[in-house]
Amino acid sequence: MPTIHVQLFAGRTLDQKRALARALTDATVATLGGKPDSIDVVFTDVEKHDWATGGELWSDKAAPPVAT
Amino acid sequence: MPTIHVQLFAGRTLDQKRALARALTDATVATLGGKPDSIDVVFTDVEKHDWATGGELWSDKAAPPVAT
Amino acid sequence: MPTIHVQLFAGRTLDQKRALARALTDATVATLGGKPDSIDVVFTDVEKHDWATGGELWSDKAAPPVAT
Amino acid sequence: MPTIHVQLFAGRTLDQKRALARALTDATVATLGGKPDSIDVVFTDVEKHDWATGGELWSDKAAPPVAT
Amino acid sequence: MPTIHVQLFAGRTLDQKRALARALTDATVATLGGKPDSIDVVFTDVEKHDWATGGELWSDKAAPPVAT
Amino acid sequence: MPTIHVQLFAGRTLDQKRALARALTDATVATLGGKPDSIDVVFTDVEKHDWATGGELWSDKAAPPVAT
Repeated sequence: MPTIHVQLFAGRTLDQKRALARALTDATVATLGGKPDSIDVVFTDVEKHDWATGGELWSDKAAPPVAT
Repeated sequence: MPTIHVQLFAGRTLDQKRALARALTDATVATLGGKPDSIDVVFTDVEKHDWATGGELWSDKAAPPVAT
Repeated sequence: MPTIHVQLFAGRTLDQKRALARALTDATVATLGGKPDSIDVVFTDVEKHDWATGGELWSDKAAPPVAT
Repeated sequence: MPTIHVQLFAGRTLDQKRALARALTDATVATLGGKPDSIDVVFTDVEKHDWATGGELWSDKAAPPVAT
Repeated sequence: MPTIHVQLFAGRTLDQKRALARALTDATVATLGGKPDSIDVVFTDVEKHDWATGGELWSDKAAPPVAT
Repeated sequence: MPTIHVQLFAGRTLDQKRALARALTDATVATLGGKPDSIDVVFTDVEKHDWATGGELWSDKAAPPVAT
């Protein structure tokens, strides 16, 4: 306690999750006090075809134009 | 905001999710006002062996009898 | 099933929730088929001091300037 | 209603989930009353590289030493 | 781990929650093994005006007729 | 995106939540890159009588003995 649930787009590497779990835990201890062992972080990968903003799936959003 | 989390049985097509994301967003704007871009929809697929009602997994529930 | 969890800012009226529950259910049936009774909608009110975007609580965000 | 969401490490067998869904449902009926059909249980598998305690992913935690 | 989230209608007594937390924990240990201390149970009260089934809020559902 | 849901015991001050939202957002940007505005943090207060570990509500756990 606290428990931190993170929903993020699929595709993050193990190293990124490892670093993020550490960083979120450290940030929480620094802010609230308490012991790191009381903090859980749980990641949930979300595919781009499972997340919509403004009614449009992220897998459907046009790629940003590339400068030429 | 708002954020709409939808748990649904796995197996829906991309077209169904695309249409559902649009329909839920439109329904929310029509009811609450606000702008579509403030609305997120997140889908979570649930396998039938991961959902139970009445203590029985949906993967175990007998298929309904077929009329003959 | 499906189950639709809606996180929204506190302060919506009962009439708005009643209408939204109906609209989300109808939109789901129209899109996925199935029967309305299989659909659950659960609302969670979130206070503006419990939601941050860009690291800033919504209760701290400056009110938009008023035209004079 | 109630709805019981269970997050557990991936790797449980179907038989374990079947038994757990039954046991949680029975425990709820015995405690709160009501009918089993009003109770939903939903399982979410979590990989060990998606859960951290104390800032360390469970996939990184050292295996306990084996007695010799 | 596992973590068990229970959404239930508001109005349960502390004694009911105490008993349910114990019963769910015992049922999980009996089924999956492991130690009780690794199991968390979190309750979320849901008001009847925040839960809809079939598009109708539970606070609006007609009380069952009373036999006379 | 990502969305960070934080369940924490009730009683934190507004200043603590403000600081935690900022710290979690900064930690995420530092680790994953991206822009702060794409990150949402949502807090859920949990009362001690709504959280159990080892089958015992936190409101029931004995206060640690005080050294004399």
